[in-house]
Amino acid sequence: MSTSTSGWTSERFYAEYETPAYYEKHIAQVRHFVDLHKTSGRRVVLITSGGTTVPLERNVVRFVDNFSAGTRGAASAEYFLAAGYAVIFLSRQHSQFPYTRLYSHTTNPFFDILQEPQSASGDGQIRVKDDQVEKLLPVLHAYHQAIQTQCLLSVPFVTVIEYLFLLRGISNEMKPLHKNAMHYLAAAVSDFFIPLNRIQEHKIQSSDGGLQLVLEPVPKVLADLVHDWTPESYVVSFKLETDKRLIIPKAEKSLDRYGHQLVIGNDLARRKTELVFIERVPENERKAGARAYKSTEFHLPKEATYEIEQDVVASLNDRHSQWIDGSA
Amino acid sequence: MSTSTSGWTSERFYAEYETPAYYEKHIAQVRHFVDLHKTSGRRVVLITSGGTTVPLERNVVRFVDNFSAGTRGAASAEYFLAAGYAVIFLSRQHSQFPYTRLYSHTTNPFFDILQEPQSASGDGQIRVKDDQVEKLLPVLHAYHQAIQTQCLLSVPFVTVIEYLFLLRGISNEMKPLHKNAMHYLAAAVSDFFIPLNRIQEHKIQSSDGGLQLVLEPVPKVLADLVHDWTPESYVVSFKLETDKRLIIPKAEKSLDRYGHQLVIGNDLARRKTELVFIERVPENERKAGARAYKSTEFHLPKEATYEIEQDVVASLNDRHSQWIDGSA
Repeated sequence: MSTSTSGWTSERFYAEYETPAYYEKHIAQVRHFVDLHKTSGRRVVLITSGGTTVPLERNVVRFVDNFSAGTRGAASAEYFLAAGYAVIFLSRQHSQFPYTRLYSHTTNPFFDILQEPQSASGDGQIRVKDDQVEKLLPVLHAYHQAIQTQCLLSVPFVTVIEYLFLLRGISNEMKPLHKNAMHYLAAAVSDFFIPLNRIQEHKIQSSDGGLQLVLEPVPKVLADLVHDWTPESYVVSFKLETDKRLIIPKAEKSLDRYGHQLVIGNDLARRKTELVFIERVPENERKAGARAYKSTEFHLPKEATYEIEQDVVASLNDRHSQWIDGSA
Repeated sequence: MSTSTSGWTSERFYAEYETPAYYEKHIAQVRHFVDLHKTSGRRVVLITSGGTTVPLERNVVRFVDNFSAGTRGAASAEYFLAAGYAVIFLSRQHSQFPYTRLYSHTTNPFFDILQEPQSASGDGQIRVKDDQVEKLLPVLHAYHQAIQTQCLLSVPFVTVIEYLFLLRGISNEMKPLHKNAMHYLAAAVSDFFIPLNRIQEHKIQSSDGGLQLVLEPVPKVLADLVHDWTPESYVVSFKLETDKRLIIPKAEKSLDRYGHQLVIGNDLARRKTELVFIERVPENERKAGARAYKSTEFHLPKEATYEIEQDVVASLNDRHSQWIDGSA
């Protein structure tokens, strides 16, 4: 099914585009990962993170990109792992990655925390500077734990085409997890793309003067995900707006349209300290004539030494438990 | 002066746009850096690297980006530093950085080469794994050297607006270096932008159906750089094309138009193994009726264990010496 209003329904999209390179390799890894955790009864969350690109040329030199460093997704992955989830991290190549994000090449280059071998000791070892160990050790340990327990699987994408194929493929593989599955759709997905037949073969030449681009809406696939791909998953989507007043009405419209469980709304300027959950009021709690939706605000205290994603993941963990128990 | 064909000449651009945030801070650092190396007589190269973005909205959610990981610029910086240059590295935020690029979070995460403290030894130290030391040590040492000798200054940009302001500001500061200055313009600069008055205040809404974007040519500033900003610098620009046949004619046209010293042409698909230098034949070597330009091809041998930037930098170092001696 599809509720897209554009010429490109999801059926048309998946029928006309070719499966991207490496797709089968990634899906085989996901299948193995899901099998492993299905057996142990561990919950599995698919986190999407980072922005998707829209190529303007077939030999990609230029593309339209969506702003997203991927911090939300990477931070959330750490808290989901700490809460005992297995995490499929579907993220934009080179965007923020769980744990390593704390040592960005630009803001905190890891070469700066390493010390060359001391000629005095003569053991030839490269060490982390003593004053850096306290901060690094817990992060390093959590990362190694996630890798060793096979609880973190990374799947990269660049274009919105790759993203849409991988989202469908991974979601289909998650079906056997039943209600132990969660979708946490934090990626900044392009709203527009340039369909195949309009893409130029070579780099657009600028000597012709200006450049006019005509983009069409990207097919909406959330309804397919909720109704066909992983119908028992607890599905969380995000709404990022620069005009705060649009968040709640757009979130409610989205829940109406796609039938998923929760929208996390955020305002671009305040996204690190304020969030709002928008969700349906359960039928048995709803009073006659009352609103069908409720919202819950999250504010990070000014003196907080943790990130807002910690509260978000704790609340989602509770809601997911209720979902599994059948009380949500 | 400006040779731009668009409505946006460089004069108009610099007059109508506001100086970006942090501009003065960056320029003050460049001034200090140039002073330091002018005194020691060290050559200084400005390397631009990575792609510039064009915001589609005033509160940036979407932007047009140019494909460039920044590998060319980052690798070249290492070879320029090894050749004794001081390097101003004007690069896209989060693009590849000299030395640390070899430990990308995605392909070679540095957390994987670190070993947690061994409980047996009890010294609580985090070490680089023994089998990784041989590869890391020379890179780490070169990085520390560059930082300690103050020979590497990083200046980040994101948008094409920031890039154009910083390029002018840094070039002006390099003027006192006279012929000891070099420009190595490897950044992938947008050819088009959306002028201020056409930019939307808020995130573009997709419910209206398609999206039409009208972009105008970015003002060409290379002539200003060559004739006004740093007239004695040895200036190298890049031409990246997907259609190889366009490289030489476009490079010659560029040398004609801007009057700089050298164009490095490359074909997107083969850019890591093939390059071509296009430059003017000196008057005293030119035979009657002969072509005004010559080209020199570079091919990386198949079995090479180094990068093509090593050959490029060695050749530029020679040409720069000739330029300084007045024989070029």
